[in-house]
Amino acid sequence: MKLETRNSKLFPAVIPVAEAIKIVLQQTSPLPFESVPVAESMGRFLAADVIADSDLPPFDRSQMDGFAVVAEDTLRTPARLKIVGESAAGRGWHHELKRGEAVRIMTGAPVPVGADAVQQVELTRENADVVEILETVKVGRSIVRRASEIKAGEKVLNRGERINAEMIAVLASFGYAHVNVARRPRVAVLATGTELVRVDQQPAQDQIRDSNNYSISAYAELAGATVARLPLVADSTENLKATVAAAAEKADMVVTSGGVSMGVYDFTKTALRELDAEIYFERIALRPGKPTVFARLPNGTLIFGLPGNPVSVSVTFNLFARTSLLALQGATDRTFKTEWAILGAALKGSADRESYLPARLTTDQQGFLLAEPLKWGGSSDFVSFARATALIVVAAGVKSLDEGARVKVVRLPGS
Amino acid sequence: MKLETRNSKLFPAVIPVAEAIKIVLQQTSPLPFESVPVAESMGRFLAADVIADSDLPPFDRSQMDGFAVVAEDTLRTPARLKIVGESAAGRGWHHELKRGEAVRIMTGAPVPVGADAVQQVELTRENADVVEILETVKVGRSIVRRASEIKAGEKVLNRGERINAEMIAVLASFGYAHVNVARRPRVAVLATGTELVRVDQQPAQDQIRDSNNYSISAYAELAGATVARLPLVADSTENLKATVAAAAEKADMVVTSGGVSMGVYDFTKTALRELDAEIYFERIALRPGKPTVFARLPNGTLIFGLPGNPVSVSVTFNLFARTSLLALQGATDRTFKTEWAILGAALKGSADRESYLPARLTTDQQGFLLAEPLKWGGSSDFVSFARATALIVVAAGVKSLDEGARVKVVRLPGS
Repeated sequence: MKLETRNSKLFPAVIPVAEAIKIVLQQTSPLPFESVPVAESMGRFLAADVIADSDLPPFDRSQMDGFAVVAEDTLRTPARLKIVGESAAGRGWHHELKRGEAVRIMTGAPVPVGADAVQQVELTRENADVVEILETVKVGRSIVRRASEIKAGEKVLNRGERINAEMIAVLASFGYAHVNVARRPRVAVLATGTELVRVDQQPAQDQIRDSNNYSISAYAELAGATVARLPLVADSTENLKATVAAAAEKADMVVTSGGVSMGVYDFTKTALRELDAEIYFERIALRPGKPTVFARLPNGTLIFGLPGNPVSVSVTFNLFARTSLLALQGATDRTFKTEWAILGAALKGSADRESYLPARLTTDQQGFLLAEPLKWGGSSDFVSFARATALIVVAAGVKSLDEGARVKVVRLPGS
Repeated sequence: MKLETRNSKLFPAVIPVAEAIKIVLQQTSPLPFESVPVAESMGRFLAADVIADSDLPPFDRSQMDGFAVVAEDTLRTPARLKIVGESAAGRGWHHELKRGEAVRIMTGAPVPVGADAVQQVELTRENADVVEILETVKVGRSIVRRASEIKAGEKVLNRGERINAEMIAVLASFGYAHVNVARRPRVAVLATGTELVRVDQQPAQDQIRDSNNYSISAYAELAGATVARLPLVADSTENLKATVAAAAEKADMVVTSGGVSMGVYDFTKTALRELDAEIYFERIALRPGKPTVFARLPNGTLIFGLPGNPVSVSVTFNLFARTSLLALQGATDRTFKTEWAILGAALKGSADRESYLPARLTTDQQGFLLAEPLKWGGSSDFVSFARATALIVVAAGVKSLDEGARVKVVRLPGS
């Protein structure tokens, strides 16, 4: 074995965040799709474009309760017109309206042929079969023309978009009782560490309760996955290997926390190597979250080995595992959208790592987005972190940033 | 019957949006709480403050893999120290470290009594039972002191906060295996209109498919509710009365859409009056969404009668019904948070109504939040609306706003 190889194993290459994200995307292939009822489609990712099956509106539609008229008949007011019928939503008046005539019409109802305007009821006075139009109305007033919003055959939603409440209305309107969406990724979540006890246990000396399994599960669900939480694994390569191998049979992705730094009790990489995993990266120029591992088992299951600190877990999950989960679902937007904000207080960067530092976003009265860094004790201070809504991104080599500086921010999912 | 009373029934008072929200909050009382497993608590509202049951960290904790030392021993480098033990996470070294000694230590492990700094492993050289410290280390370096983040007994989360992924880590760490949260409100959703057909049906002439039931359900779920979708109700007072009365027996809130404007086929208010509902408001100085009804049945069930247009549904649901759902769950933040943004294109307001107009939010490179109004055909154009991420709020009486104006915006939930 050459010395160089030995060194690269002991101190493997530290790669930039952007390169790590690129590798994650290269190594993630979309899952197959499935059909789900539209009422259960929120948060899922469209597996195909959505096409309008009809014009929108499907007919000339009234925007008001009032009277459908010929606009020219209302040039002199009050205009007395004969009420010849009524058009209600679902029960149109399907004759031709002639000069001197008016049809009583409801919001959402079809406008009769011949009519070219609707005057709202508040500006009319009805008396038996005659209506007085009290104000002149312009051609086209209160009418939404057939197909003025959407033409049948038009694409209305794109493959890869995430379905929100508004899109559900679009799907329902165009008859998508079922929707083709990417299958939900199955994620197995696993925390390692002799120091960990379950949430319902009392920690003894040197012990702490596991919290990462719960936050990782929550983040994975926010990214569209279904989650299986595995029992805690003490620092034992054999236990870890057995648990990961069993989990991988039923999971598209295994996310571990803990056990990935340089200490002699850091078993994750050893276990992965003994399972013949291909390790794509294991050190990132990232603060917090340097010792993050990305690998793949021979059966294809993706592995993210995250550090043990809760804040590192959040940063690395959302930068890498979330990106992979979104790519598994064929999402168009797979990485964080960067925004620009004004820094609310001075901040320290890192000489050699890109920093992702917790912050709260607000806007001031001038319309500036403000990023207020959270006072926190480091990557273990997840109580402060619970109030973060965003991360401030500080480039490697930027030693410090002054209050008022322009900074890049990314919003935390679900905040 | 006095003429004044008759007029006020035909043209009931139009109240400002802020007053309508105030009435909704006055009429909404919190639901009882229930206990749920922490893993199922995301998105729920805390029914009580969360108190730390232990210090955080629970012991002086190492932030690095390396060696615990007495800092003064490293003033001259390389400093040769005797390795007297090892402290791993979960397996501390519980003796007193003396001058001239070092203890091998892992990230997250307890720092031995007597040590006052940790030097990271990369700056050390180990040889049998001796370690050379290659760089001087300062007192306190890489140690997070016991209770420096949280002291036992401290309040860490507040009653009324909505549980996010980060808070789940806090709950788990402090032993909250189960969490007391507000019971989910039960919402029954009901669309009225002879023109409506089900999503799996082909609309005949004058008909459209129901979409409001689906978007209202999605919005209600985003606000924490469980939802029952009721069958479509044609424009018949008797059908509507029977359906609402039956739904109200099992629901905290019934949300209807359609049937609330001034037309003769608008049955919702008639049905509510015949059910002896108390109607709190029925016209709001709001665009879109003027004819929104808020009422309560004698059994206590809240009723929101929303207009039939999909965009009006979104605006009125999120301004009023969502506020009520959050108040039912004892939420601290029950109304929309207003932000300030710069308007991306000119906009028209309304003489007598407060406008809520769809927009997309971005930030520019200077850190300004920009609100780009969506081109849309009016309150029925839900295809454009599917791309909205926010609503621009234009005060009543503001006729127009120029590009570059400072505007209030509220973000749409789940966008």
